[in-house]
Amino acid sequence: MKIQTETRHFNSPLYLESGRILEPYEITYETYGELNDDKSNVILICHALSGSHHAAGLYEGDKKPGWWDGLIGDGKAIDTSRFCVISTNVIGSCFGSTGPMSPNYPSEAKYRLKFPVITIKDMIRAQVHLLSDLGIYHVHSIVGGSMGGMQALQFAVDYPNFADNIIALAATYATRPWTIAFNKVAVEAIRRDPRFQNGNYAVDAFKEEGLDGLAIGRIAGHISYLSPDSMDDKFARNYVGNDGLFELFGRYEVERYMEYNTNNFSKMFDPLSYLYIVKAINTFNLARGYDSLYEAILRIKANMHLISFASDYLFFPQEMEHIAKMMQRNGQECNYLEIESNYGHDAFLVELNKFDTIIRDILEQG
Amino acid sequence: MKIQTETRHFNSPLYLESGRILEPYEITYETYGELNDDKSNVILICHALSGSHHAAGLYEGDKKPGWWDGLIGDGKAIDTSRFCVISTNVIGSCFGSTGPMSPNYPSEAKYRLKFPVITIKDMIRAQVHLLSDLGIYHVHSIVGGSMGGMQALQFAVDYPNFADNIIALAATYATRPWTIAFNKVAVEAIRRDPRFQNGNYAVDAFKEEGLDGLAIGRIAGHISYLSPDSMDDKFARNYVGNDGLFELFGRYEVERYMEYNTNNFSKMFDPLSYLYIVKAINTFNLARGYDSLYEAILRIKANMHLISFASDYLFFPQEMEHIAKMMQRNGQECNYLEIESNYGHDAFLVELNKFDTIIRDILEQG
Repeated sequence: MKIQTETRHFNSPLYLESGRILEPYEITYETYGELNDDKSNVILICHALSGSHHAAGLYEGDKKPGWWDGLIGDGKAIDTSRFCVISTNVIGSCFGSTGPMSPNYPSEAKYRLKFPVITIKDMIRAQVHLLSDLGIYHVHSIVGGSMGGMQALQFAVDYPNFADNIIALAATYATRPWTIAFNKVAVEAIRRDPRFQNGNYAVDAFKEEGLDGLAIGRIAGHISYLSPDSMDDKFARNYVGNDGLFELFGRYEVERYMEYNTNNFSKMFDPLSYLYIVKAINTFNLARGYDSLYEAILRIKANMHLISFASDYLFFPQEMEHIAKMMQRNGQECNYLEIESNYGHDAFLVELNKFDTIIRDILEQG
Repeated sequence: MKIQTETRHFNSPLYLESGRILEPYEITYETYGELNDDKSNVILICHALSGSHHAAGLYEGDKKPGWWDGLIGDGKAIDTSRFCVISTNVIGSCFGSTGPMSPNYPSEAKYRLKFPVITIKDMIRAQVHLLSDLGIYHVHSIVGGSMGGMQALQFAVDYPNFADNIIALAATYATRPWTIAFNKVAVEAIRRDPRFQNGNYAVDAFKEEGLDGLAIGRIAGHISYLSPDSMDDKFARNYVGNDGLFELFGRYEVERYMEYNTNNFSKMFDPLSYLYIVKAINTFNLARGYDSLYEAILRIKANMHLISFASDYLFFPQEMEHIAKMMQRNGQECNYLEIESNYGHDAFLVELNKFDTIIRDILEQG
């Protein structure tokens, strides 16, 4: 599988939903596989909150491959010997595309809190610009989970003729207060951390020792990505061997997991990007910009494939089912599938064997 | 209804589950109604994490009555014209009973992090001492929700002849990693807050401006006390009027609710007490000290009444049902009731009209 990572610079303005303009801006993206002659074999992959363009393959020296490596590759469900897969880093993120730590042109100072609020609509508009720039005006499929699923759904509504197939996993039609509340933990924990300095921290400030606020917020995130049952299976009530049960700061295994994962995360993810992306998730509402959710969904022309997970405690299966039912009532076709899984929201990242053949079948037929 | 608040001092040792000793110690408690001549009309009320002995009635100058005022009073479900209701502040808490901010006798310095870890077993042992001191060796009923329900269940197992009736609401047989993870947010947020100073903060340090770490941890708490549906009903996706949708720190109603409630809470609750009580909740396991949960439950002799709430996302109904099923398989009687409610875990505090007649009936028959 041929992997290419590039960053493209745009001097044209990106008109944002807020009315503000991002100009210039950059998008970092990865391609796997070869574009065919009539450019008809493109699959666009959309990433989640903490993801990046690096969806598959292994960088030199890395131990872990891209976040959907089990799904994307030669002969895999998203077959790079047949398809040209493109995966972009969303604007607002911190892995190469323009975000709050980018220079606020013409100044060389970073945007920081002057960065405009970004929405899911903005993220996909930026991707349309990138693809246009590559001479691609239509794609075979758009696939994404969680915030990536939101982007796939938003594509289906905002650009009805852009993709033949939409495959959205573990997403929703509009973020509910339950999810906004989980995100609130991160917003407050980051914002109130003195080392955050109202966004004026040094570039490498958290490289060695992550920002506590981000780590704490991320604990709440991890709760919502797992499920009560998956935690029982994974941790039970096991106590960390060397910690005493009657020590105040002695830990259960689940606590050690939370510490370990979130401390690491807070060293590699930019806190301002986290705030901006969380905001994009909170404001996600397929109906916005249209008369109603009904009107928004009525625009959809692509073949829709919605996949939810039974134990998803962040975006409950009923939320995706709601879209499917609405389409079916409208006489629009929509395939909806709820997959049995104990893994919670994370299932879209870890239970690939439960849905890879489904995605393979969709792409082979589509 | 006659209300009395008192604090009783004990010079005898309280032997803790950890092997440590608390000596001397104090218990603050409230009584409502009159003790009858043969002391047979006592109902013990057990409070939850953030509660106190002040379960009913209105203190002079207060706007809000005790936390179960709708349930406890003359003519109410827990009828103080008939019963003598006793409600104690658990040890470890911060409303009068001995806790981490009490002096570490013989020193006058406060315990702070030297305070011993307290368990649910310890909390009830202290209550047994108090009642013995009042000449009460047997009670009519023990009633509590959430951590109060844990205490009621622990009473049933540890002191099988102590109460005729146990009424436990919204509790569990052992705290699951899901709940421990929610508590972990508070533990880390408090511990990493620089103003916490490893427990060496001044006594009134957070009176004016609460501790951020406690407020942040409490957001995670509030998520677990509500439910996705109750949040939809309460907040929908409404935006705070004066905040802009495209402002980074503009807020949804659910965010304002979280800010308001948690900031207030962090001004009135002691962070060390929070850590110690959360620890007691995390370590709760009815089986501990016995060969198995089966052996523990086999000890129960009281009339058991277990009430859960359908939308409880902290202690799921199946957890209480597990106890009931186990008892029923053993041939022990146990009444289990799952109440329809949208309110989540908080239902035991706010949906009183859904279960007050049930409690009235139990107490009238019992």
